[in-house]
Amino acid sequence: LAIVLGANAYGKAECRVVRIVRNGARHEIRDRNVSTSLHGDFAAAHIEGDQARVLPTDTQKNTVYAFAKDLPEAEPEELALALARHFVTAVAPVAGARVAVEEYAWDRATVGGAPHDHTFLRRGQEVRTTHVTVDDRGGEWVVSGFDGLVLLKSTGSEFRGFLEDGYTTLQPTDDRIMATSLDVRWRHLTATAWASSYDGIRTLLVERYAEVHSRALQQTLWEMGRAVLEQHEDVAEIRLSAPNRHHFVVDLAPFGRDNANEVFFAADRPYGLICATVRRDDVPCAEIAWDAWPPRAAGGSPDGR
Amino acid sequence: LAIVLGANAYGKAECRVVRIVRNGARHEIRDRNVSTSLHGDFAAAHIEGDQARVLPTDTQKNTVYAFAKDLPEAEPEELALALARHFVTAVAPVAGARVAVEEYAWDRATVGGAPHDHTFLRRGQEVRTTHVTVDDRGGEWVVSGFDGLVLLKSTGSEFRGFLEDGYTTLQPTDDRIMATSLDVRWRHLTATAWASSYDGIRTLLVERYAEVHSRALQQTLWEMGRAVLEQHEDVAEIRLSAPNRHHFVVDLAPFGRDNANEVFFAADRPYGLICATVRRDDVPCAEIAWDAWPPRAAGGSPDGR
Amino acid sequence: LAIVLGANAYGKAECRVVRIVRNGARHEIRDRNVSTSLHGDFAAAHIEGDQARVLPTDTQKNTVYAFAKDLPEAEPEELALALARHFVTAVAPVAGARVAVEEYAWDRATVGGAPHDHTFLRRGQEVRTTHVTVDDRGGEWVVSGFDGLVLLKSTGSEFRGFLEDGYTTLQPTDDRIMATSLDVRWRHLTATAWASSYDGIRTLLVERYAEVHSRALQQTLWEMGRAVLEQHEDVAEIRLSAPNRHHFVVDLAPFGRDNANEVFFAADRPYGLICATVRRDDVPCAEIAWDAWPPRAAGGSPDGR
Amino acid sequence: LAIVLGANAYGKAECRVVRIVRNGARHEIRDRNVSTSLHGDFAAAHIEGDQARVLPTDTQKNTVYAFAKDLPEAEPEELALALARHFVTAVAPVAGARVAVEEYAWDRATVGGAPHDHTFLRRGQEVRTTHVTVDDRGGEWVVSGFDGLVLLKSTGSEFRGFLEDGYTTLQPTDDRIMATSLDVRWRHLTATAWASSYDGIRTLLVERYAEVHSRALQQTLWEMGRAVLEQHEDVAEIRLSAPNRHHFVVDLAPFGRDNANEVFFAADRPYGLICATVRRDDVPCAEIAWDAWPPRAAGGSPDGR
Repeated sequence: LAIVLGANAYGKAECRVVRIVRNGARHEIRDRNVSTSLHGDFAAAHIEGDQARVLPTDTQKNTVYAFAKDLPEAEPEELALALARHFVTAVAPVAGARVAVEEYAWDRATVGGAPHDHTFLRRGQEVRTTHVTVDDRGGEWVVSGFDGLVLLKSTGSEFRGFLEDGYTTLQPTDDRIMATSLDVRWRHLTATAWASSYDGIRTLLVERYAEVHSRALQQTLWEMGRAVLEQHEDVAEIRLSAPNRHHFVVDLAPFGRDNANEVFFAADRPYGLICATVRRDDVPCAEIAWDAWPPRAAGGSPDGR
Repeated sequence: LAIVLGANAYGKAECRVVRIVRNGARHEIRDRNVSTSLHGDFAAAHIEGDQARVLPTDTQKNTVYAFAKDLPEAEPEELALALARHFVTAVAPVAGARVAVEEYAWDRATVGGAPHDHTFLRRGQEVRTTHVTVDDRGGEWVVSGFDGLVLLKSTGSEFRGFLEDGYTTLQPTDDRIMATSLDVRWRHLTATAWASSYDGIRTLLVERYAEVHSRALQQTLWEMGRAVLEQHEDVAEIRLSAPNRHHFVVDLAPFGRDNANEVFFAADRPYGLICATVRRDDVPCAEIAWDAWPPRAAGGSPDGR
Repeated sequence: LAIVLGANAYGKAECRVVRIVRNGARHEIRDRNVSTSLHGDFAAAHIEGDQARVLPTDTQKNTVYAFAKDLPEAEPEELALALARHFVTAVAPVAGARVAVEEYAWDRATVGGAPHDHTFLRRGQEVRTTHVTVDDRGGEWVVSGFDGLVLLKSTGSEFRGFLEDGYTTLQPTDDRIMATSLDVRWRHLTATAWASSYDGIRTLLVERYAEVHSRALQQTLWEMGRAVLEQHEDVAEIRLSAPNRHHFVVDLAPFGRDNANEVFFAADRPYGLICATVRRDDVPCAEIAWDAWPPRAAGGSPDGR
Repeated sequence: LAIVLGANAYGKAECRVVRIVRNGARHEIRDRNVSTSLHGDFAAAHIEGDQARVLPTDTQKNTVYAFAKDLPEAEPEELALALARHFVTAVAPVAGARVAVEEYAWDRATVGGAPHDHTFLRRGQEVRTTHVTVDDRGGEWVVSGFDGLVLLKSTGSEFRGFLEDGYTTLQPTDDRIMATSLDVRWRHLTATAWASSYDGIRTLLVERYAEVHSRALQQTLWEMGRAVLEQHEDVAEIRLSAPNRHHFVVDLAPFGRDNANEVFFAADRPYGLICATVRRDDVPCAEIAWDAWPPRAAGGSPDGR
């Protein structure tokens, strides 16, 4: 019974690169976390310990920094494509490359009412993401998205008429808080104006979250995804992952107070987790493109903290 | 040789309370994390296991939720004062109470260009903080502040002329990135318009960070603190804690590229840590008021993750 | 151009359940984090907001707690199988269920040299994992594993003879620290004695990590995986994900000291990330079984901290 | 009204240093996180931006690595004392130095039933801590301790007879789970055999936690602290901080099952937080020594994650 090497990949995860564009006194900042992953014929490295075909992960890191220098104006998608194409083209043993970019947003500081030339404040918690896959047969997949957009609506959400069984104790409600921390990915069919596409899709998702009277989180996700596909022809499919951050109405009756959806306990765990894909009927799925493979480990801290 | 009970306190940490103010269709949201801590004569609870003088932490939690109901418009400082005064006044064994409030900011979602009535987005990473101490002899201390305001300036910062010894290898520089994640606390001498005071101090701190040409982070902190005390007479002292988030210029020479402060590696650890207090000459320090004692534990996750 | 609902699933994530087995004075503890995920025909919930086929995630949580009561001696694999079979069998709209269990290990406290009856200490950082998938056509997949086994060898590891290009600056080494935080998953072909199987595989992985003179992390992973498949016939394939936690030799020459692999800087980021699968030649891959889908969100803290 | 510089300090936080002691084939590992903090006359650095008296934090980092080389066998207390004395003695402007060490424990890997020479597994979650303060008037304070020792007893704990007011809803109980994640610090009056002292105190604390029938967490902390002071004459005082990690009995009655303290929900937040000091009657408190000042920031990740 033969034992064989299966799927494998390797790369450098979490290269933290800050690019300052110094066009005169007014600087721009690009703050990114870049991860690379290569696959190809690396059997000898595994089975014989022969590194002759292995480009070190340290070299991949150097390449990330050199490309950041060369491409000062690149959107994350462009930087990721340039890097992935380079590895597939210039490094013989590489059959495919995946590059993931997280981008952290900064606002200009306001000083005396005006935006400052070279001082910036980190904006928000959400992270813009890009996952690009390039193979040596001409395939290219670009997935854009974000992680951690935290949304809450204080009304306009209900949950009732659900299936019940012997383990059901939940009461139906026609007015509740609906809150989530959205992770979204969408796959592009063609190149586009990446920055304005990103801004447009993010705005649309927020608007639909606000406007749809929600009979369940599932319905809201569907309406959000559908709107994106209707208005963005270059998007083949979109995936939404939404933890349901439960806000429970606190019982104040023992203390002689009513509570008409005014005071809530925001719970940590457990939480509902709702995931949905919205896609075009005539476009095949592309599993390869959704995430850089292998998934990144949980963090770089050697202390486990 | 007698062994005795020393300083002690107990309370409920991290009551997560979301308060929705429903004045008609346009809702307001107050999202807070409230911790209480009581001290007094609790020797019997420790030494004899007698709980007769111990108000359960569960009761303290209930009180937080009830007060959140009663005080819909309260600023964090007002909520904390009300709770602390209650515990000192209404619970006989309590000689002192400290209440800490973290407030998480939300922006209204923009829908069709207009702010939405009941949908909100979490803003930023920074957390507004309040630490209030009240004792049964009429003492009240209010400390306002924030944690995690992340700032970066891409020029206007130098570090040279420093002391050198046999372990020094650092090269002086006259142009570097200066970045930090500011934690700041300031102590009020009197009550004030808490919300506008907070906004004014935060704006001033950002402006001074931007405008001061920095010869060291120490100098910048001093100038930031001094400006606050000059413009806010009700502030007795201010404490700033600033990790120096090092951004190292990447050497691109091996790859045939120069790097004139354009491409940086953002390092995680170690980091410099600079702390400074700026205070009025004629105002005594008040150690008691700076933080809720005891310090909060590292987090509520029972898995240690 | 039709827009359609694609893959979707929903469930309750991170039900923290502690099960105490009280057989007389000597208690046992089972400390787990259980996540459920259901898929099936939930189109109406998305497209029409009709919940008639949706079993609430709250009900799924209740079911987890009830099964924890009923199955005091169950290994994580058995608990997950029981839950997944229940959802597929008893809930009509459910076509497939995935259940993930994380198990946290506790040791008995030692008191006077003897193990204590009812006091326990959390052991280690690593987490035992189970991912079970059951569908309504009789398919069952069981994946066991662990996350976060932190290993370090201070010698017996080299890295040289690697591919070089114009971005390569790394020097080869024949003696380095090799450290990682292992995440491993293995898929069973048949039911087995889950607890002893887990212990045996974990021991074998540690032994091979220690004993293999490593010419690269790839080689070590291959040897670890191969050993498991050779000795455990019920294992179809094994996947190893290993961040390379770099330990850099500190240059002490400027301070008049040599450093023969004695003093290291343990870096946080970036890190190499090496992933490999070892499998049997004649066993088809089973993508469905490797992880509960959808992936869990990054954590339950509503503050994003 | 004069505005003046108040308390200030600066240093290098979280120098991650791994020291391998290579006495022949059998290696030892010392894995530490060292933070330094200096205070003295640094007014010119703040007010004039003059760095002439400022030893860079980069130099402090270098010193940590050099001392790690020189002191291969040092316990954390000894390393911290050596560093703090050096800064006070050798760097003229320094009036006081505080050094904090976190130590991460590793076990030898077991291979073929025997401990391996050079392969190690990270043990547990708890972190051994040391905080040392040295001033230029001959003062030296040594505080030892640990963070994150997670303990649970499944019986032998009650909570009843407590004070009730109008906000009290808690029911008394005579049998509950008591769980915590202990942070403990103790101050030494004299030098001692640091390693065996640490082991002895940790063992004693665990034993008392197990053996004391607890009428409240306060009582357990008192008994733990008292035992340490009775058996360790060199300990002047001990501080214990114990979050009460609530485990709630799940109501299984709706599903036709009883639950005699068998199935618990382990809650995240809020949690009780109990802190107590036990000290000798005739020993003055020493506020200076308990923690390195300034407190460390929340972490080194520039992404705020």
